[in-house]
Amino acid sequence: MKIPPPPGCNVVLAERVLTAFLREETCKFGFERAVLGLSGGLDSAVVAELAVRALGGSNVLALAMPHATSSQASLELARASARHAGAMLEVVDITPMAEAHAAVTGIADDGPAARLRRGNICARTRMVVLYDRSVQWRGLVLGTSNKTELLLGYGTIYGDMACALNPLGDLYKSQVFALARHLGVPEPILERPPSADLWAGQTDEQDLGFTYAEADALLHLAVDRRYSREALLRAGFPEAFVERIKTMVRASQYKRMPPIIAKLANRTVNLDYRYPRDWGV
Amino acid sequence: MKIPPPPGCNVVLAERVLTAFLREETCKFGFERAVLGLSGGLDSAVVAELAVRALGGSNVLALAMPHATSSQASLELARASARHAGAMLEVVDITPMAEAHAAVTGIADDGPAARLRRGNICARTRMVVLYDRSVQWRGLVLGTSNKTELLLGYGTIYGDMACALNPLGDLYKSQVFALARHLGVPEPILERPPSADLWAGQTDEQDLGFTYAEADALLHLAVDRRYSREALLRAGFPEAFVERIKTMVRASQYKRMPPIIAKLANRTVNLDYRYPRDWGV
Repeated sequence: MKIPPPPGCNVVLAERVLTAFLREETCKFGFERAVLGLSGGLDSAVVAELAVRALGGSNVLALAMPHATSSQASLELARASARHAGAMLEVVDITPMAEAHAAVTGIADDGPAARLRRGNICARTRMVVLYDRSVQWRGLVLGTSNKTELLLGYGTIYGDMACALNPLGDLYKSQVFALARHLGVPEPILERPPSADLWAGQTDEQDLGFTYAEADALLHLAVDRRYSREALLRAGFPEAFVERIKTMVRASQYKRMPPIIAKLANRTVNLDYRYPRDWGV
Repeated sequence: MKIPPPPGCNVVLAERVLTAFLREETCKFGFERAVLGLSGGLDSAVVAELAVRALGGSNVLALAMPHATSSQASLELARASARHAGAMLEVVDITPMAEAHAAVTGIADDGPAARLRRGNICARTRMVVLYDRSVQWRGLVLGTSNKTELLLGYGTIYGDMACALNPLGDLYKSQVFALARHLGVPEPILERPPSADLWAGQTDEQDLGFTYAEADALLHLAVDRRYSREALLRAGFPEAFVERIKTMVRASQYKRMPPIIAKLANRTVNLDYRYPRDWGV
């Protein structure tokens, strides 16, 4: 497609803002430490870099949580990114938990539906491990979902989307990539095609059917610059692509929101009782 | 303490509003069915009753998810409440998943910290099972947290607090109790002391150190009627109790909110990009 380029990123400003964000918000929560899941991919490598700059290496615990089906390369890249960032690393094999789920709930060996179920179970099992470790170690859970994934709903609700603080949620994938390069994330991680690593050879872009550059260009104009449908078509985006992305954003809105509570009283949690932190009860 | 009574509940209105809420919101999500976890306690029994009235019994799937340490009475009461409501029931034993977590992450056999960790792991394992089943069966996950639990943070984030729709989140425990009686929830469930059933003989009120009637009276005046600290003391609440509850509400605010995202762009997920459903991208 002949379409506009994805949005750029002021990487110096982003590093400064996000490092301050992590330091200040961690402190406001009453914490000094943070934990995060390290997949061997780009996003979690960037969060590890930012967290160590914000809190110091001895206050950042990265958990690599491979499953028997994860690629060995992922674990090696997770080690490389923890080493480069200067974060502590622990490895927790989630195979026994995931297999117990599969056995009890009866998941078939193969097929796209079984693959999706296994992927969600792995993502949520990692959340359970991360939150358990965060209480033990007194660290806040950092999220690694970028804005592209959040808007497309390309993630597991209550799984990899679960966290206390998310430094990347307002950066599109292309912008995270630029920031990663600026922060010195190791070359093999920059070069690797983005993947949820659910099965051998899976890549996000193959799975989605479009590139991150294409999605980022469209989402940036539609969401941040409020282009109308007509303006998007005039800018060169094919109609089917605009529809596809719009449908994905709409269908995943529930993943970006807290549960909907039926309103019956004067002040309702998350409707009109909503304070980030400081308030009178 | 000589304090005001907990808030009353217009049970006829609540039944009407909440039944309509469940029917309309399920439909807006594009679903016809719902799934919920049934503990054998009051809250989930009430949600089962409301869901069957809203969607019909064949569209409501209740999952009882006992652990080896759960009381046998809980499972029997879960069966009784599914039967009374007219919902379908499935039983899924979560012991293998919880034991795999405990073995891999090394949880001690006993002590309060181990007990808390095991409790959170069980709550989150139930969420994993419920969400997996919800996709398979094409049902929306209903939450069962009441307003007292939500405000006190007496629940597990990304565990029992995880859901798509919560019909009880704006009703204090005392109000849920009145509604349960109105809906005909079986007597043994009404009579049983509220408990998270994490160990034999546990009760919420013993655990918390105050009664639901006391907490509900204070929370209703503080949150819904916006009483000042001084007004609460004048109303007869002991100062230490006011402080205790206020601290609990503040310390658990993060459980009621979506993750905090660092703002960098024009429109940020959950800050200024927030639509319940219908909108232009």
